Amino acid sequence: MAELVGNLLVAQSGGPTSVINASVAGVIQEAGKHGMIEEIYGGLNGIFGILNEDLIDLNEERAKTIENLKYTPGPALGTCRYKIDFKKKPEHAAKEMDRLFEVFQAHNIRYFFYVGGNDSQDTSNKIHQEAVKRNYEMRVVGVPKTIDNDLPHTDHCPGFGSATKYNATTVMEIGMDVGGMATDEGSCCIIEVMGRTAGWIAAGTVLAKRFPSDPPHIILVPEVPLNEEAFLNKVKETVAALKYCVVVVGEGMKNAKGEYLDADASRMDAFGHPVLSGAAEHLAEVVQSKLNTKTRTVKLGYAQRSAAHLSSLRDIEEAVMCGEAAVRAAVDGRSGFMVKLVRSSDNPYHCATDLQDLNDIANAVHLIPREWISEDGFMPNEQLIQYARPLIEGEPKLQFDGGLPKYAQLDKMPVDKVLPARG
Amino acid sequence: MAELVGNLLVAQSGGPTSVINASVAGVIQEAGKHGMIEEIYGGLNGIFGILNEDLIDLNEERAKTIENLKYTPGPALGTCRYKIDFKKKPEHAAKEMDRLFEVFQAHNIRYFFYVGGNDSQDTSNKIHQEAVKRNYEMRVVGVPKTIDNDLPHTDHCPGFGSATKYNATTVMEIGMDVGGMATDEGSCCIIEVMGRTAGWIAAGTVLAKRFPSDPPHIILVPEVPLNEEAFLNKVKETVAALKYCVVVVGEGMKNAKGEYLDADASRMDAFGHPVLSGAAEHLAEVVQSKLNTKTRTVKLGYAQRSAAHLSSLRDIEEAVMCGEAAVRAAVDGRSGFMVKLVRSSDNPYHCATDLQDLNDIANAVHLIPREWISEDGFMPNEQLIQYARPLIEGEPKLQFDGGLPKYAQLDKMPVDKVLPARG
Repeated sequence: MAELVGNLLVAQSGGPTSVINASVAGVIQEAGKHGMIEEIYGGLNGIFGILNEDLIDLNEERAKTIENLKYTPGPALGTCRYKIDFKKKPEHAAKEMDRLFEVFQAHNIRYFFYVGGNDSQDTSNKIHQEAVKRNYEMRVVGVPKTIDNDLPHTDHCPGFGSATKYNATTVMEIGMDVGGMATDEGSCCIIEVMGRTAGWIAAGTVLAKRFPSDPPHIILVPEVPLNEEAFLNKVKETVAALKYCVVVVGEGMKNAKGEYLDADASRMDAFGHPVLSGAAEHLAEVVQSKLNTKTRTVKLGYAQRSAAHLSSLRDIEEAVMCGEAAVRAAVDGRSGFMVKLVRSSDNPYHCATDLQDLNDIANAVHLIPREWISEDGFMPNEQLIQYARPLIEGEPKLQFDGGLPKYAQLDKMPVDKVLPARG
Repeated sequence: MAELVGNLLVAQSGGPTSVINASVAGVIQEAGKHGMIEEIYGGLNGIFGILNEDLIDLNEERAKTIENLKYTPGPALGTCRYKIDFKKKPEHAAKEMDRLFEVFQAHNIRYFFYVGGNDSQDTSNKIHQEAVKRNYEMRVVGVPKTIDNDLPHTDHCPGFGSATKYNATTVMEIGMDVGGMATDEGSCCIIEVMGRTAGWIAAGTVLAKRFPSDPPHIILVPEVPLNEEAFLNKVKETVAALKYCVVVVGEGMKNAKGEYLDADASRMDAFGHPVLSGAAEHLAEVVQSKLNTKTRTVKLGYAQRSAAHLSSLRDIEEAVMCGEAAVRAAVDGRSGFMVKLVRSSDNPYHCATDLQDLNDIANAVHLIPREWISEDGFMPNEQLIQYARPLIEGEPKLQFDGGLPKYAQLDKMPVDKVLPARG
């Protein structure tokens, strides 16, 4: 394998996680060890910014800033939801691909790393294939990232552990609050978490449970369609026994007809738009109206994927590992792969990185196996607990300033543009 | 002043805070120093449980558990929303008061401490007045607690600092997430926090702002009615300038007519119930439909008053101080007071406890002074920042177990009941 000398470009894509920057730090720190990698550039806002030639020089950043990126939420380079769409707009997409390779060529990019979820791995794959087709020597390796934990072929995804640590802690704390207020009247609290297709995020909150009567008492995952009657019975039973009930629901929860719970066409606002109040609000209305039990909702939303103040040290370390492994693979001549995590043991936990062909990633989604959930569908079982528990372990040492976490901020020294502006 | 020998009863009431148990720990630890206080009892679920003679022996708890209570969320003794209502049900209330004093007498309770907000201080006052009327020697001192920060006569309320530290951190982290994803499309995120009458909780998130362009970009407080047009203009301007806009809204936000934003009679669900989607959901619909800007919501709900994993050390220390001061005041012969915090200096911050007559607390609410908010009503100014900043300072050392915070749990050794069950 001839040594490929040139510059590196790393970018981030899609919804961030608490540890998305840890992977970038891993890429930068590992790249610094390899002489054939000359400049280390960051692409701003993923493909979207790269098309605009918005690159920054990461070698100009302080080493300490790069180290602190590991503990910093939000995508430090910026992300996008932009897709080069060959299906819907083939001509436009072909032009964009041309532009992309103009940028790569103009800056002698020979190593390209894209940190992202399903769509972003697909983009990485297209770029790899184009490079081969164009005979442009460049090594493309995808770095996995998603709190949804739904990428196939990897044991789990960086970002999931931290989201789960935060969500499980939050559910535990809310449970102590609601449980402590429980009197004869009874009450219910419904907590909505992310996860459109897979229920990993909701399921992970089972870790808050140390005793059978602990919250959460019901966990609803999109993998098991809602049986409303059974759900209401379960809430009723729980309130009767404990005087309160804590429910966790994944936002992508569906009814028996396969429709999202919050897409209720009968509910329109004054403007004629459907009321998108969310799965938790929908369930709260059902519980309140059918059981007459006081019900409150919590919607963690973006908080759960940015709560770096409570990220998992193991998750951070693995996110770094994935970034490092991507660089090593590329230096070794590999292209068209995604880094994956392979677990060899739960206890003691042991996990290493390996590579998976990017062709195997697209259009596949990793769902919770049905046998990891109780028969009634309301609670993940010991298999899921064993899987998820090691992923939330360890706490990073945080720095605080004036009572708030102190996070890294890149200087973002721009790389001079050499191309005419995008047409 | 003759020494009053007898037993102590401490109880908690209303919506908990992250530090409500710290005040109880302060009461217990201080009480242990005074020989005239013999037994130290806890009342379960406030007045509601005391009426049922549900008392526990706090002297049986391990000293370490009591110390760890300072860092433990949820009301360790349980709370209630129960009120002895002399206005609506005078006869029933009189009977309940009789029962309450039967319980006090049966257990020789001579020191009573109620940790709570506005309603609970009112209850403390009624109990104090009844004790005087009945010539039953007992010292009653209220301990302030509410994340709402709306108790009058005290500089601030224990619980507010921790809620603000958590909320400001969350807003900062969400801002990094949303800001990092901002591309030309533009987006808006609306975060709903608590506060039905006063906007302190929403206003406190201004601490997340270190530079003028930092999130939050708009803070809506109930003290300033919503001007929808001006609000939409402000969102539009912000998105135009920064490509994103983070809004924080207090749940009690009202429109110009003085109605809650989420009480929109035109929006009914399939059962004919009004859709109580909350202030953030309401605003999101407005922004999305009128500006066509992608908008997402977060509703922190109970999380913000139970997130002890991110409580303020100063808040914990002051909550303990308030509990200790209550015991010292009672031992000194005072009754019918609430402990209050008196600030003598912002920088260096200095705050001490004092007492306020409970008659001064009822029916008064501490709102944000209008001059602490910008003229357009969308942002608290330097005066609020100076007030709130010291309250979020300091981080307690947390213990973790298996990746989750380890919180104290009381053994709750019951005190033998000596009265017939409540009729």
